[in-house]
Amino acid sequence: MDALRNRLNRITHLNQAAAVLEWDQETYMPEGGAEARSLQVATLRSLAHELLVDDETSRLLESAQPESDIDGDVIRVTRKDIEKAVRVPSSLIAEMAAASGRAKGAWQKARANDDFPVFAPHLEHIVDLCIQHAEALGYEDQPYDALLDQYEEGATTAQVAAVFSELREDLVPFVKELTSSGMLCEGPVHREFPEEDQWRFGLDMAKSMGYDLNHGRQDRSAHPFSTSFSISDVRITTRLEKRFFNPAFFGTLHEAGHAMYEQGIDPALEGTPLADGTSLGMHESQSRMWENLVGRSLPFWEYAFPSAQKTFPDALGNVNLEQFYRAINTVVPSTIRVEADEVTYNLHIMLRFELEQEMIAGRVAIKDLPEAWNDRMASWLGIRPDNNTEGVLQDIHWSLGAIGYFPTYALGNLMSVQLFNAAQTDIPDLHDQFRRGEFSHLLSWLRTNVHHWGRRKTAGDILQEVTGSGLKSGPWMAYARSKFGVLHG
Amino acid sequence: MDALRNRLNRITHLNQAAAVLEWDQETYMPEGGAEARSLQVATLRSLAHELLVDDETSRLLESAQPESDIDGDVIRVTRKDIEKAVRVPSSLIAEMAAASGRAKGAWQKARANDDFPVFAPHLEHIVDLCIQHAEALGYEDQPYDALLDQYEEGATTAQVAAVFSELREDLVPFVKELTSSGMLCEGPVHREFPEEDQWRFGLDMAKSMGYDLNHGRQDRSAHPFSTSFSISDVRITTRLEKRFFNPAFFGTLHEAGHAMYEQGIDPALEGTPLADGTSLGMHESQSRMWENLVGRSLPFWEYAFPSAQKTFPDALGNVNLEQFYRAINTVVPSTIRVEADEVTYNLHIMLRFELEQEMIAGRVAIKDLPEAWNDRMASWLGIRPDNNTEGVLQDIHWSLGAIGYFPTYALGNLMSVQLFNAAQTDIPDLHDQFRRGEFSHLLSWLRTNVHHWGRRKTAGDILQEVTGSGLKSGPWMAYARSKFGVLHG
Repeated sequence: MDALRNRLNRITHLNQAAAVLEWDQETYMPEGGAEARSLQVATLRSLAHELLVDDETSRLLESAQPESDIDGDVIRVTRKDIEKAVRVPSSLIAEMAAASGRAKGAWQKARANDDFPVFAPHLEHIVDLCIQHAEALGYEDQPYDALLDQYEEGATTAQVAAVFSELREDLVPFVKELTSSGMLCEGPVHREFPEEDQWRFGLDMAKSMGYDLNHGRQDRSAHPFSTSFSISDVRITTRLEKRFFNPAFFGTLHEAGHAMYEQGIDPALEGTPLADGTSLGMHESQSRMWENLVGRSLPFWEYAFPSAQKTFPDALGNVNLEQFYRAINTVVPSTIRVEADEVTYNLHIMLRFELEQEMIAGRVAIKDLPEAWNDRMASWLGIRPDNNTEGVLQDIHWSLGAIGYFPTYALGNLMSVQLFNAAQTDIPDLHDQFRRGEFSHLLSWLRTNVHHWGRRKTAGDILQEVTGSGLKSGPWMAYARSKFGVLHG
Repeated sequence: MDALRNRLNRITHLNQAAAVLEWDQETYMPEGGAEARSLQVATLRSLAHELLVDDETSRLLESAQPESDIDGDVIRVTRKDIEKAVRVPSSLIAEMAAASGRAKGAWQKARANDDFPVFAPHLEHIVDLCIQHAEALGYEDQPYDALLDQYEEGATTAQVAAVFSELREDLVPFVKELTSSGMLCEGPVHREFPEEDQWRFGLDMAKSMGYDLNHGRQDRSAHPFSTSFSISDVRITTRLEKRFFNPAFFGTLHEAGHAMYEQGIDPALEGTPLADGTSLGMHESQSRMWENLVGRSLPFWEYAFPSAQKTFPDALGNVNLEQFYRAINTVVPSTIRVEADEVTYNLHIMLRFELEQEMIAGRVAIKDLPEAWNDRMASWLGIRPDNNTEGVLQDIHWSLGAIGYFPTYALGNLMSVQLFNAAQTDIPDLHDQFRRGEFSHLLSWLRTNVHHWGRRKTAGDILQEVTGSGLKSGPWMAYARSKFGVLHG
């Protein structure tokens, strides 16, 4: 067991080092360092992969004598990781890396010139490689299952499609109702918020929620993210807009939510493949919980608003709590996913989920993708993008080969409410605690029920054990109706 | 050759990644991340070492068909690296790592309480391990040769001792003369220099000397250093003192000098063991040249002083060029090496060099080290430390096991003048160029004669080829007499 752990430590250290290099690339690296950096990261990732699939690792797995439940889980999860890793030929991985390198460049060019045909042949190639990838991984029902499983272990296309379609039936008319009410004004969040004050206020609030800055820090980057270098060093980044309160503040809470998950993993799992979030959906449930269910709630702002007013006297001095609460919860259909509000966001995801399935199944030709995108936007959200840069070209994911990733964003939203409801059952005065600026009970509840398990339990298992049921759309829809129904009169 | 290069690339990438992790540790890492970080770095360094000494690397070296002079040098230098690496048993390396971990803690404690006996047993152990290390590496004349050779390949104790002792005979009386002249006043550099302005001014000047910020950047750290992540990403750090101009400004030039060396290495050497400075002494010659021979010269300040006055109107508004030039060139014996001026600095080094030899040869008992230190300080510099914290406990090097490292600082000083004189022969109007803020000719000269070779030539070879002679103390002494003789009337 010791020999196995030593080997897994090495693999973990290589991946952690790669994460540090990638973090530096997005935060501090001088432009000229990019080429060498991508070679360094590739070497670290390759070495980690080679060590994992090496016969010696399998031999150690065979002969290891587990001495605890954790040891048993380490062996079980590592075996599964190896099984998946060996199925995909390294030639395919290399081809995907090369193809996505080219596709990313083409995507940037296509976006800059609103020129989808520049990107189309690259996307065709990526889709083809993803199908090969799915075939290599194997699946029971359909190829998309294999792609989805990479990000959300155990979830199936059919299951997700069923939940999403149930949700959509309620959501599309609900969005129409909300947007016709005309009750909201987001003016207060579009005033002048000095950048240093935004930085400090966001980080103070993340800290008061439980993000541990002795084991984390925040830096700036073009696209906010969180990243873990070990359970004891989990960092976040943010971006600042001078005249828009939301991106930095809710971005910070969102990334801090991800980071608190990683900080809460059982230290006994450090150095093993178990010291990670169990799925992207579960990860997103944590970020969305702190961003939306806490950070966009009225009880939270009953606590935080006086401090926000003090921090931003020019912007918020003549705004009251209710106006502010309405401003941060305005529902307005927009074409851009990353700017979408809490309610319409899920529709952006479902659109991508459907198109991904159709691409993989060959039911839509790549050349027809812009039209398919725009038609669905019009039918579900009531708006049509003016161009492809604001439509089908807006996200980087497909150019990276990450097909099957998008649905996890909406799965996270749904799970966040299911989990929050369970927490509220266990801690009935949760909202009163928020009003007093107390978040430690919620955080310990999440640590016990979600975080500390790392990858020892799947997202599905956690959900079932904690909430008594699998993934459902009903709880999220009920939450949305209750919160936004009131807000929109 | 391709297969060999691929393997060397991997080794290089692992070491470069370790450098990124170490840089982060000194600049941005949250405190709580330290333990995991040291494990990550250890894994990367071990993997690099294992790949280097692995039989497969030797097999590739045997069968590689060099197609160029560079290929030939890659094979030659890699062979030599392996020969040295395999001589030292990994148990000894591990023991040194463990011992220096403990010694560093004891050193910090001893320093804090001026309690040398707390550190003494650890130092004894370190010295013992260094002797074992020297025996493993092998030497012709004496064990200290092997230690010195790790940092300054090809240099011998006897050769360095001869040059140092010649230098000391002139230097000790010269320092006495200078310090009795009482001609200098360093007041102007001890005024208030706003930190952001220091930052900008130092970096602007480093940039004008040729430090390429598209392939580098500066951050803050407690102890300034430069580090290379590839030829295309070479960074520096600095520290700022509000009421002292010198640490940040000359520290920035010093580190930028190191960094320009690494930025100037032939890109064809990237990914091989040749893409590094050829010795610590040669490295230090570059940092000292830009810090002292350029940065503390009168011609440089004829160019830079107006801009300094504009940047720091409060501190320098009523100071003239000559007063400022005298202030930055004040010679005052002090007990602390890192605060020493250009002239007395070498005596601090020689003291350490002698004591290191005596420790390794067993000619001084560790318990008598403080007395030996203080006596020599009194005899050479005319001052006696008040306590051991300002005496024998001031440097971290010995606790890290880095015996043989110190002499390279003074070697760098000597080489810097030998090289600068050669540059001046080739570019007679060098000082006039400085007066106009032109540094590109000096930099290209250094690139051609020193930098671009990387480790293809040893420091000794470069010195011989470029200056027509080996290491000598005369040129440095002549430089010091001419510069400081004038300054001190």
